[in-house]
Amino acid sequence: MLPNTYEVTTTENRTARLEAFSDGVIAIAITLLVFGIAAPRDLPEGKTLYAALLELWPSYFAYLISFLTIGIMWINHHNLFKVINHTDHVLLVLNVLLMMMITFVNFPTAVLGAYIADPEGQQAAVVFLNGTYVVTALAYNLLWRYASGGRRLIDDSADDATLRAITKSYNFGLFLYLVSFGAAFLSPVVGLLMNLGIAVSFALPARNDLYGGD
Amino acid sequence: MLPNTYEVTTTENRTARLEAFSDGVIAIAITLLVFGIAAPRDLPEGKTLYAALLELWPSYFAYLISFLTIGIMWINHHNLFKVINHTDHVLLVLNVLLMMMITFVNFPTAVLGAYIADPEGQQAAVVFLNGTYVVTALAYNLLWRYASGGRRLIDDSADDATLRAITKSYNFGLFLYLVSFGAAFLSPVVGLLMNLGIAVSFALPARNDLYGGD
Amino acid sequence: MLPNTYEVTTTENRTARLEAFSDGVIAIAITLLVFGIAAPRDLPEGKTLYAALLELWPSYFAYLISFLTIGIMWINHHNLFKVINHTDHVLLVLNVLLMMMITFVNFPTAVLGAYIADPEGQQAAVVFLNGTYVVTALAYNLLWRYASGGRRLIDDSADDATLRAITKSYNFGLFLYLVSFGAAFLSPVVGLLMNLGIAVSFALPARNDLYGGD
Amino acid sequence: MLPNTYEVTTTENRTARLEAFSDGVIAIAITLLVFGIAAPRDLPEGKTLYAALLELWPSYFAYLISFLTIGIMWINHHNLFKVINHTDHVLLVLNVLLMMMITFVNFPTAVLGAYIADPEGQQAAVVFLNGTYVVTALAYNLLWRYASGGRRLIDDSADDATLRAITKSYNFGLFLYLVSFGAAFLSPVVGLLMNLGIAVSFALPARNDLYGGD
Repeated sequence: MLPNTYEVTTTENRTARLEAFSDGVIAIAITLLVFGIAAPRDLPEGKTLYAALLELWPSYFAYLISFLTIGIMWINHHNLFKVINHTDHVLLVLNVLLMMMITFVNFPTAVLGAYIADPEGQQAAVVFLNGTYVVTALAYNLLWRYASGGRRLIDDSADDATLRAITKSYNFGLFLYLVSFGAAFLSPVVGLLMNLGIAVSFALPARNDLYGGD
Repeated sequence: MLPNTYEVTTTENRTARLEAFSDGVIAIAITLLVFGIAAPRDLPEGKTLYAALLELWPSYFAYLISFLTIGIMWINHHNLFKVINHTDHVLLVLNVLLMMMITFVNFPTAVLGAYIADPEGQQAAVVFLNGTYVVTALAYNLLWRYASGGRRLIDDSADDATLRAITKSYNFGLFLYLVSFGAAFLSPVVGLLMNLGIAVSFALPARNDLYGGD
Repeated sequence: MLPNTYEVTTTENRTARLEAFSDGVIAIAITLLVFGIAAPRDLPEGKTLYAALLELWPSYFAYLISFLTIGIMWINHHNLFKVINHTDHVLLVLNVLLMMMITFVNFPTAVLGAYIADPEGQQAAVVFLNGTYVVTALAYNLLWRYASGGRRLIDDSADDATLRAITKSYNFGLFLYLVSFGAAFLSPVVGLLMNLGIAVSFALPARNDLYGGD
Repeated sequence: MLPNTYEVTTTENRTARLEAFSDGVIAIAITLLVFGIAAPRDLPEGKTLYAALLELWPSYFAYLISFLTIGIMWINHHNLFKVINHTDHVLLVLNVLLMMMITFVNFPTAVLGAYIADPEGQQAAVVFLNGTYVVTALAYNLLWRYASGGRRLIDDSADDATLRAITKSYNFGLFLYLVSFGAAFLSPVVGLLMNLGIAVSFALPARNDLYGGD
């Protein structure tokens, strides 16, 4: 086991297994979000199950935001490995760190579901979630900068303009999350809506050249 | 991270990773259903474990219905990507929405297991489950209409008659779920048995040309 | 969604996605077994954590038996799809049923961990687990008989002697599980040890021609 | 089902499905670690959510150590199957045992999160975790020794010097875990920091020939 690693030089593309492992981790992290919603039990006298299910809206909302955000992280990871075509030890380690952050999103999401409707804890919950997104964005930037620096692990078919555009969009994404992290201190509601806005704006068909068809 | 996406044009079929990710999400969603069944603990005096295990029939029944339904959703997804042979940004987003609905099925299933035998909550539980199925059917329709519109993402080997037959069967499926959603308001038991009937009727070997051998 | 299935004739081998999905389900089912072991909390005065961890032996034992059993089910599934080289609608449905049983194993395992050391519930817990294994063995037989009947879905390279040997070994496996199911009524301990014995005997390198090297 | 296994001789590389299954198990085991962190509920009067989230540091720390350790186990497994290029029955069984240990790590991690800040239980918790790592290292050694003995399952392109270097690094890893297991008895804190040190030292870019680029 650790630290028993070794690497054998092969000419073949070795990102397949990294992608499969990452898909697995992201798929699990995203699927488990639904377990942050607790089924109502022991309804008090006179309260219908309809009412109890409606009252869970904070949990549904937290589920929606985090599912869209992790879903978009997956699309990003998927796209990233269209231009990265091989791996090395450092990339594997950076990818483990990224997976650690994506998986961790489950925890602040559960906290948010529990405190979103509580005036006392609301701010801390949103700050915690948005702070987690900032660190995750940093992990994405780190991985990309390592892979693209000097075209270290980049496919020959990707041109420099594409790489620059990706770098720029990653910087912009990190900037947006920093803003939404700061906004959470001023107004938790605004900080939360910014996350949803970022996710929804992303989900719209893109207008510039970078987001071309497959 | 978001909104740092970009796409690089490749000629190669890129549905492999979308399928792997979807398989992962569906596999996890279906496997976690078993955790909606709680092991009996602290048996009251004079009650055998045999009796306690038998009394859990509502949970077994909810498990059976949702496992079959999600299993069939997987078979559908599997078949869909025999005719869809490439992806674009919008399809990835629509697929994330579909996965969000399939994963969410876990929550109404757990609610159903808890309230199926309770006269007060039974109706709300079945309405909630069947409503979730309706939205999931809508998500499937949306994905299919986007992919098949103008043969946008369709393999050249699929003929138009096949595409029309698929569209028709998706419309019919959505119609059936709307009927079973409406039925749940009149009679929860009928609404529930309709779901089981849809799943079982599907599981039977098909008789028309559309369901040919591989 | 259901019942919107359709199949498009392709000549290509289509078991890859069925195998990936099954691997996912089995991987999750086997991994979740560890959550049947509850961490000791609120230790009573004077009791060490060492003692509390040792007292959990029934849960470790249930984990061991079910992990080995599901692990062997995976090896079997892996081997099965060396000779089955295409799929059809019925096989997909039978595989969903098989996955439903393998996933369900988690529930009797959790029950066993809770009641293995309880003289009252011990018998019911082992009967329940062994009964689940019998139904799972039936599901395996059904899938195999369908796939191999008239060489319906079998690779041309597999000879008839191999198919007969597989059928025979499946019949024998079902027989062993029936015996261990019956034994559980007479003596829960014997019924449990038989499961372990079947799993361990399987894990030994095989001696006959059927179990050749890869 | 068991013991119904059989193997059919094929010339094709059959490690793909073993790798996919192992990736699935490891991905799930690593993702579930986050569920060892419980969201704070029912805050006492006067305590902020900020304070409650900070107090969870032992759980974050346990999450960090185990995520890095399992992440590195995955990188090791990934690298191992660059030189192992086919499988047999014994290897599949040894891999199931290895997966059983990796999955089990979740349990001592949850115990550690609960007892790391408790003077009474701290030692037992670290001894339990480090003992689990020792057994996992043994399982890795067993699998490697079986696969590499007489180059049983090794790719022709791997030279003997590489194999010897891997064997040596596995022995060294086992030795380090034994030391950290022993240290846990003398000082739980030192035993824990050793694990983190092993993981971090591994994560650094390697300096010797063995850790070459891909």
